[in-house]
Amino acid sequence: MGFLGPCGTHSEEVALYLIHQGNAKEWELEPYGDIKDAICSVAQGGIDSCVVPIENSLEGSINITLDTLAHDVDLVIEREIVWRVHNQLMAKYPNAPIKTIISHPQPLAQCRGYIRENYAEAEIKQVSSTARAAEIVAASKGGCAAIGTFRAGELYNLKPLATEIQDSEGNCTRFLVLRRPGEGGEGGKDKTELICQIDGARSGSLYNVLWEFAKRDVNLTHIESRPAKTNLGEYIFFFSIEGGCGEASVKESIQAVEKKSLWLKNLGSFNTNQVDIKKLRKGGKKVW
Amino acid sequence: MGFLGPCGTHSEEVALYLIHQGNAKEWELEPYGDIKDAICSVAQGGIDSCVVPIENSLEGSINITLDTLAHDVDLVIEREIVWRVHNQLMAKYPNAPIKTIISHPQPLAQCRGYIRENYAEAEIKQVSSTARAAEIVAASKGGCAAIGTFRAGELYNLKPLATEIQDSEGNCTRFLVLRRPGEGGEGGKDKTELICQIDGARSGSLYNVLWEFAKRDVNLTHIESRPAKTNLGEYIFFFSIEGGCGEASVKESIQAVEKKSLWLKNLGSFNTNQVDIKKLRKGGKKVW
Repeated sequence: MGFLGPCGTHSEEVALYLIHQGNAKEWELEPYGDIKDAICSVAQGGIDSCVVPIENSLEGSINITLDTLAHDVDLVIEREIVWRVHNQLMAKYPNAPIKTIISHPQPLAQCRGYIRENYAEAEIKQVSSTARAAEIVAASKGGCAAIGTFRAGELYNLKPLATEIQDSEGNCTRFLVLRRPGEGGEGGKDKTELICQIDGARSGSLYNVLWEFAKRDVNLTHIESRPAKTNLGEYIFFFSIEGGCGEASVKESIQAVEKKSLWLKNLGSFNTNQVDIKKLRKGGKKVW
Repeated sequence: MGFLGPCGTHSEEVALYLIHQGNAKEWELEPYGDIKDAICSVAQGGIDSCVVPIENSLEGSINITLDTLAHDVDLVIEREIVWRVHNQLMAKYPNAPIKTIISHPQPLAQCRGYIRENYAEAEIKQVSSTARAAEIVAASKGGCAAIGTFRAGELYNLKPLATEIQDSEGNCTRFLVLRRPGEGGEGGKDKTELICQIDGARSGSLYNVLWEFAKRDVNLTHIESRPAKTNLGEYIFFFSIEGGCGEASVKESIQAVEKKSLWLKNLGSFNTNQVDIKKLRKGGKKVW
């Protein structure tokens, strides 16, 4: 199972959870330098599955995941994990004044309010992952801090300066497990994910597509638009549908939407569950 | 007029264009360290206007601009500039092998394909602006290159290694000029921008809102959802409407949408125009 590495990222925590809960078919973890590489490696047969973030409750969609799923691969979703995000500020020398804060752009954005209030003067340094940030801080002579996971703190021997520093209590990230079509894991009942390009993409055309869901009482949990990457003003849409393709109303609405689309990709139906690693860790102790 | 600094960014080029074309009421430019600071400074009266990016044709919306407009300020849009983006790879020592490529995350993403093909092994370093990247490369001893504007190359004495390296010919960024309400510049005829939170935010509710536009033949050029920043699954919507509030159909549809929303912000009506700085520069010569 591929994930955005190195060890100590949120993605690795999710992958470890899946393996230790017996929910993953694989037992080997494979870190990748970026999300696109992990997804493409599944498509090319290098690995059998990967776990990638698709949306955060504060910062919104992870564009590289959406764009890769839309333009570069044909994969299906095996399951969804809604992961409670706990961001921790960590340093090697907790008593030295913090002049630089290092992390991945997403947690830096999720903790924007906290940083402004507590470290307004600090320089912000963006790196490729939270674990890379922890690694840099661990190798430093002090004066810098990383935002990352509990596990990264343990792996790199960093001391927590503050925990739960994200700007909202309910900070969650949706992760997807992706697999090649026809290789098992499809057919869950909770949700279905579609990508399509609608001809025209103006109010009338999107309205006509939404009508196909509304008239069958099919609920959408999320609608996202992304550039079609052709011209400014041309978009593709991502629809997250409540229910699986086993339900007639879901199946029929997708067939009707396909007729109104230039193209449509069905990423399949899958189950979803919510996980809070802090509860599994029971007072800070390691779970793996 | 505030912009995302330092000098040499795309935002500064747009601000210079506005001033030199006589389209700006102000003559002084004020660089800001981030987009949110520039926008909030207008709201707090520190400056009278600012120019900020809101959407790129390859990478999609600029989230910090959307989120600040939705949650932190009450400003109106004076005008929109659709700016043709020319990304240039520049180095101080063009003959040294390039081991590191430095830029703002947006141009790095816009040039992802080019970098993969030509510099697959290079380390990617994200910094706060294209101009900051040029500054770092100018101070280096070689081995690194910056992606940025023609002007940044001139300002920092860098040599172009390659031009037009973005992944799409039609790479454009939409910039907005923002101003406090009631201080002039409102009432253009080309477009109107709305932000609202719809109760429920499921297919039925968005469908009902789109119906208010569709039944009056009002076109939307863009629909964007962003997290409401409350819970995962709660969203706010940005609607870009064709036409100004001077048209009865536009005005009436907005009034109807407001009745169906938990809250609605009308960012006003404004004119839009497309600019290609390369054509203004006539064979590479400076225009300001």
